[in-house]
Amino acid sequence: MSTTPEPFTTDDYRERMARAARSAAEAGFAGVLVAPGPDMAYLTGYRPPADTERLTLLVIAAGQDPVLVVPTLEAPDAEKAAGAAALTLRDWTDGKDPYAVTAPLLDAAGRFAVSDNAWAMHLLGLQQRLPGTSYVSLTQGLPMLRAVKDQAELARLEAAGAAADATYEEILKVRFAGRKETDVAADLAGLLKQFGHSQVDFTVVGSGPNGANPHHEAGDRVIGRGDMVVLDFGGLKDGYGSDTTRTVHVGEPTEEEQHIHNVVRAAQQAGFDAVRPGAACQDVDRAAREVIASAGYGEHFIHRTGHGIGVTTHEPPYMIEGEEQPLVPGMCFSIEPGIYLPGRFGVRIEDIVTVTENGGRRFNNTPREMAVVE
Amino acid sequence: MSTTPEPFTTDDYRERMARAARSAAEAGFAGVLVAPGPDMAYLTGYRPPADTERLTLLVIAAGQDPVLVVPTLEAPDAEKAAGAAALTLRDWTDGKDPYAVTAPLLDAAGRFAVSDNAWAMHLLGLQQRLPGTSYVSLTQGLPMLRAVKDQAELARLEAAGAAADATYEEILKVRFAGRKETDVAADLAGLLKQFGHSQVDFTVVGSGPNGANPHHEAGDRVIGRGDMVVLDFGGLKDGYGSDTTRTVHVGEPTEEEQHIHNVVRAAQQAGFDAVRPGAACQDVDRAAREVIASAGYGEHFIHRTGHGIGVTTHEPPYMIEGEEQPLVPGMCFSIEPGIYLPGRFGVRIEDIVTVTENGGRRFNNTPREMAVVE
Repeated sequence: MSTTPEPFTTDDYRERMARAARSAAEAGFAGVLVAPGPDMAYLTGYRPPADTERLTLLVIAAGQDPVLVVPTLEAPDAEKAAGAAALTLRDWTDGKDPYAVTAPLLDAAGRFAVSDNAWAMHLLGLQQRLPGTSYVSLTQGLPMLRAVKDQAELARLEAAGAAADATYEEILKVRFAGRKETDVAADLAGLLKQFGHSQVDFTVVGSGPNGANPHHEAGDRVIGRGDMVVLDFGGLKDGYGSDTTRTVHVGEPTEEEQHIHNVVRAAQQAGFDAVRPGAACQDVDRAAREVIASAGYGEHFIHRTGHGIGVTTHEPPYMIEGEEQPLVPGMCFSIEPGIYLPGRFGVRIEDIVTVTENGGRRFNNTPREMAVVE
Repeated sequence: MSTTPEPFTTDDYRERMARAARSAAEAGFAGVLVAPGPDMAYLTGYRPPADTERLTLLVIAAGQDPVLVVPTLEAPDAEKAAGAAALTLRDWTDGKDPYAVTAPLLDAAGRFAVSDNAWAMHLLGLQQRLPGTSYVSLTQGLPMLRAVKDQAELARLEAAGAAADATYEEILKVRFAGRKETDVAADLAGLLKQFGHSQVDFTVVGSGPNGANPHHEAGDRVIGRGDMVVLDFGGLKDGYGSDTTRTVHVGEPTEEEQHIHNVVRAAQQAGFDAVRPGAACQDVDRAAREVIASAGYGEHFIHRTGHGIGVTTHEPPYMIEGEEQPLVPGMCFSIEPGIYLPGRFGVRIEDIVTVTENGGRRFNNTPREMAVVE
């Protein structure tokens, strides 16, 4: 059904680490400290077997090759990563102080950007060992480290989006009325896997009043005729994310329901139309929000308009008021305005969009009009 | 096959949080900052749907009720946790500064213990907001926070151990020779689930030379007659961990293999015999290590003797040289010495043990003698 893309090569990872080093230097950092998780997977291809109290840390510092500090027991795993040939391994054994092993790699008076999800314990270990150093999170210091995707990454995100679209087309054929939200959620998860996802991150089925809570996942509520149903689903396919939302209706909608759905659809389109190189992230949020506010529902749009996507389904850049980061070709993010009427229902429509030289391009292309399901 | 234990109650969590507050005060801390993960699950029963960049933080500080800072979108989930009735929820919405919400809860000149796995980004956010505060990791500052188990926890750990034992008894009946390590690993995972595990954390099958790498998981190697095979497996059952290791032999062992297995078994017994209230953690390590060193294999025992277990399969206290923490009744940990001969084979034997008033009690009770499999 779907073909597996070529794996990323040592050269791909070498280039990513070199770019991280350049970005860090330009931003005045002495280096980047990368923890297991999406940052490390992106920069080296290495995903440690477990994220434990044993320090694993990639040090990208000016004037030296990248060094991966790794527990001796896990060194054989690390050596197998595609990026391993582009860095030096430095292992440490149980009972030794891993911060003592790391400290000589760092400028003792340097300012470092560190992975958001690095363990506080490890940051404290470095702060104690090197009191002259200072740190900021990658999201604060180098938020765009993973934000601009190359062609191979765009191809993966496009394929993940197509798989999510195929999932949506199939879910329209299942029965909604009389079944629990969790049943439909299980259908969504099965379809995502069937269409090539290795990991399902979320399958939101918010029927009737549950749709008015944007973070409702799926519950025991039995879906009934007349319900509006928010479907928000995604995960990882070949290491890259999908995330799309459509809001469907069981049986014919009322005029009010149709009207609110139309408003959200227009808001989503306005957000999309605001995408172009040089526009600010907050411009996308403002464009979508303006449509909803003008229609009188501003207080019912209670979250940001979007978030980036890549090796995770949730990362910078964020489409939110106050985010002045300019859009750059290759950035990929969601545009997902919504209206939530407490106790009644919710509507959200979401596509993943990438910035092109001329504007935006969607990775989700199923109809955004309200579908009627049975 | 196995019965589900009574869930922990609001009172259980209230008591745990009160104990954490007392321990923190005794150790001179202004409070404990608890991140999503095992600490939060242990103290509140709350497991957030995802561990994201949005701050969720439990603040246990002197002179105030516990407060859970939580994203507005996730507050409905948090309210459902059994411990929620024993704390105050303080929610914050997208676009607001979560550290500004948290800061008023903290003594601006206080010293705090913070979950090991709290995100560095969140720690940096607090450090920037409150430059007069200081922090140490829970493992450094209050390592024994979750170490002493109550009766309900001991019952869960014992049941998890029994399920792991049942898994071992069944795996002895499967065919080893001619099958891949990953096939036997899949059998182990299936059996753990069959015997009530909700989560499988590891299924190590280290045959022949692969057994000499203590962190080998399972690979494509086809197991053959004459192989020593290390089997190390565990996970979570009803929220508490199992972890046991037995080393089996395919067909009859050589004299040397039998001898080395006997040495490891004697070392494991010596470690167990060293368990008593008031002994130091390092005494357990020393007792096991002494047996292996006396037999001439000291350089081939390349890891610590054990680790604590509870809501995770890997936590303090650690049985390692230098750890002077005294053993206390209710502590639970592994005793797992091993001998690793590079390029040839490895032997490891592991039980979970709890400290009693009189000594130790094992939660794994399958024979430790070397089993011969087909």
